[in-house]
Amino acid sequence: MFGACMENVRKSVPLVHNITNYVTVNDVANVLLACGASPIMSDEPGDVGDITAICGGLNINIGTLNERTIEGMFAAGRKANELSHPVLLDPVGAGASALRTDTAIRLMEEIKLTVIRGNISEIKTLSLGSGTTKGVDADVADAVTEENLSEAVAFVKDFAKKCGCIAAVTGAIDLISDGERCFIIRNGRPEMGRITGTGCQLSGMMTAFITANPENRLEAAAAAVCAMGLAGEIGWSRMAEGDGNATYRNRIIDAVYHMDAETLDKGARYEVR
Amino acid sequence: MFGACMENVRKSVPLVHNITNYVTVNDVANVLLACGASPIMSDEPGDVGDITAICGGLNINIGTLNERTIEGMFAAGRKANELSHPVLLDPVGAGASALRTDTAIRLMEEIKLTVIRGNISEIKTLSLGSGTTKGVDADVADAVTEENLSEAVAFVKDFAKKCGCIAAVTGAIDLISDGERCFIIRNGRPEMGRITGTGCQLSGMMTAFITANPENRLEAAAAAVCAMGLAGEIGWSRMAEGDGNATYRNRIIDAVYHMDAETLDKGARYEVR
Amino acid sequence: MFGACMENVRKSVPLVHNITNYVTVNDVANVLLACGASPIMSDEPGDVGDITAICGGLNINIGTLNERTIEGMFAAGRKANELSHPVLLDPVGAGASALRTDTAIRLMEEIKLTVIRGNISEIKTLSLGSGTTKGVDADVADAVTEENLSEAVAFVKDFAKKCGCIAAVTGAIDLISDGERCFIIRNGRPEMGRITGTGCQLSGMMTAFITANPENRLEAAAAAVCAMGLAGEIGWSRMAEGDGNATYRNRIIDAVYHMDAETLDKGARYEVR
Repeated sequence: MFGACMENVRKSVPLVHNITNYVTVNDVANVLLACGASPIMSDEPGDVGDITAICGGLNINIGTLNERTIEGMFAAGRKANELSHPVLLDPVGAGASALRTDTAIRLMEEIKLTVIRGNISEIKTLSLGSGTTKGVDADVADAVTEENLSEAVAFVKDFAKKCGCIAAVTGAIDLISDGERCFIIRNGRPEMGRITGTGCQLSGMMTAFITANPENRLEAAAAAVCAMGLAGEIGWSRMAEGDGNATYRNRIIDAVYHMDAETLDKGARYEVR
Repeated sequence: MFGACMENVRKSVPLVHNITNYVTVNDVANVLLACGASPIMSDEPGDVGDITAICGGLNINIGTLNERTIEGMFAAGRKANELSHPVLLDPVGAGASALRTDTAIRLMEEIKLTVIRGNISEIKTLSLGSGTTKGVDADVADAVTEENLSEAVAFVKDFAKKCGCIAAVTGAIDLISDGERCFIIRNGRPEMGRITGTGCQLSGMMTAFITANPENRLEAAAAAVCAMGLAGEIGWSRMAEGDGNATYRNRIIDAVYHMDAETLDKGARYEVR
Repeated sequence: MFGACMENVRKSVPLVHNITNYVTVNDVANVLLACGASPIMSDEPGDVGDITAICGGLNINIGTLNERTIEGMFAAGRKANELSHPVLLDPVGAGASALRTDTAIRLMEEIKLTVIRGNISEIKTLSLGSGTTKGVDADVADAVTEENLSEAVAFVKDFAKKCGCIAAVTGAIDLISDGERCFIIRNGRPEMGRITGTGCQLSGMMTAFITANPENRLEAAAAAVCAMGLAGEIGWSRMAEGDGNATYRNRIIDAVYHMDAETLDKGARYEVR
């Protein structure tokens, strides 16, 4: 199933509009090309409408947001909504600054999102900020582990239901839910955290996957998570002595480039609850 | 001849001012260093005049343009014109948005350009938009192929003549013309299209080549195209099993780094019409 | 001693706030991760205060400054001063444009800096511009060599004393002084200059080192210089035939990733005057 999602990307070559941070943007573009999609970057309010219109999906990443690009995010989001394009939000640093938290929450309120993908801290911040009056849910720990998995799954399902979109919380264990079902994914390696931008790359690739699989978005989002994690495993297996995080970065994108449906289906490690 | 153009870059170490997109800017800087030039990036209107003044050539790439950097492009272009520095325009995405098309056309109108380098779709957009009232020329297909080569050569010559500058249309077959002669170049590999920014890198490198070869700009522009394509061939020959587009990106820049005049002269595959 | 400084980075995992240029930002993030620190990038005036507040140190690099990010530099610098966080200034291109020179000098005047790290030309520009009326000191040559080492050491000590901070002048021979002592470092390779951003990477890494070694900042700054230079030597030793500057870039970051205290202590080549 995940393999078929990836094949749909390679067959349809979705054009993905990215408003993303300048730290990891090059890797986002290259991983999109690696998985079979085609990236376009544009963040200027006067440019984004036209660009979104020729694309199939929109990836909004607030990693190095500024007043101008925030305006671009809203303009692109509204246009994508008009055209019923899928929109992914990567709320990088929500909780780390008021501007990031507020921007992410405003995007959630004003733009119909298809997926929100972040780490557990970011998603917890958003779950609290979005109009609820509950305090921090102490039962949801800061990292998803085998020990707190049930609570974490319940939290992610609840968050997805409240937001009316797919929630993808990634970390050592990844949880992807539409509010009803939750994919629990165990691909990946801890060393991926020593490379800048594996999360941003995943957001780009996930946007391609949900764009190419409109009937099957939850599975497509989960497939992207498995593909990225599996690429991390394959890339790691190709590391030579002395190779570090710079080489690992290349190896992961290379592994996405060569991944086929069969490899992904065989390598995916997940369960559904 | 092409080898001599490259040697002139290595000997004179031209300083190249780049106003370029943030997606591929790092690779542009590294390929400029690889070919023997020295890159400087600056896009702020209040900074570009001074920076252009200490450089030898200007590379304008509109890939992630915004209102502020557009102002920077014009300010830098005017200063470069004052100082008779060569100016290259890479109209990334012309035709994809009104802002990009309009900005490229305004740059063509207000700045004396030495080279316009783009893909066939971008150049076709510019050929139509620049004040002519003709519809799309159906005789020039969207890709330059052996079948439509004569028409494509005529189109590029005509475009160069109308613009009063060198036109470089790159793709599977590259065409570089000053309106009189047209270099037809067949170096390169299709896999280069799976890496972000090979076009942007070429624009940077071409600016270095035309800056270092003021008496011989058509040949210098063609030499840069051959060098990039040949680097793509050499880089590909060094790919190991499992290597993908991330590694290929590095291999291409590495091949430019090691390329000497003899290698370029022997590997260049072109004809002139 | 230098090894202990590096171990303190790996143990304390300092969060480093970077306002840095978009050319080399990805490498800055990856080298920070490689040395054991954690990078955050933010340049928006309305965002930098919160981000600096959660970080341990601030790295200001003016490489692609603009009016908005300059405002961000001052806002972040003031907040870092309030919180007594160390602040490093990398005055990229000071001397190349009035905007860069003026911005660097204003930062020196209005922000309490912990380290200024640049090349000899940048530092000479700043030494002249900061309110003195002396002409260019002809005794301090543009490159630090064994021949002019004594004068250069005296110059760097004097600059550090006048600025009231650590001065780190890097090049073929590196000089790091707090005004009293001067570390003279001979690690590194000339080929590092053919990669974009080794200086920016060093500034990022040095910020992590001074953040993690608050009692020992001069040694920490010198340790970062040795670590970067040694990584350049180790990375070079792993180059294969045909590898060029793109691969070298990865090899250097990889070498930082694997460097341990013992390797650094053994490989460091320096004297103190």
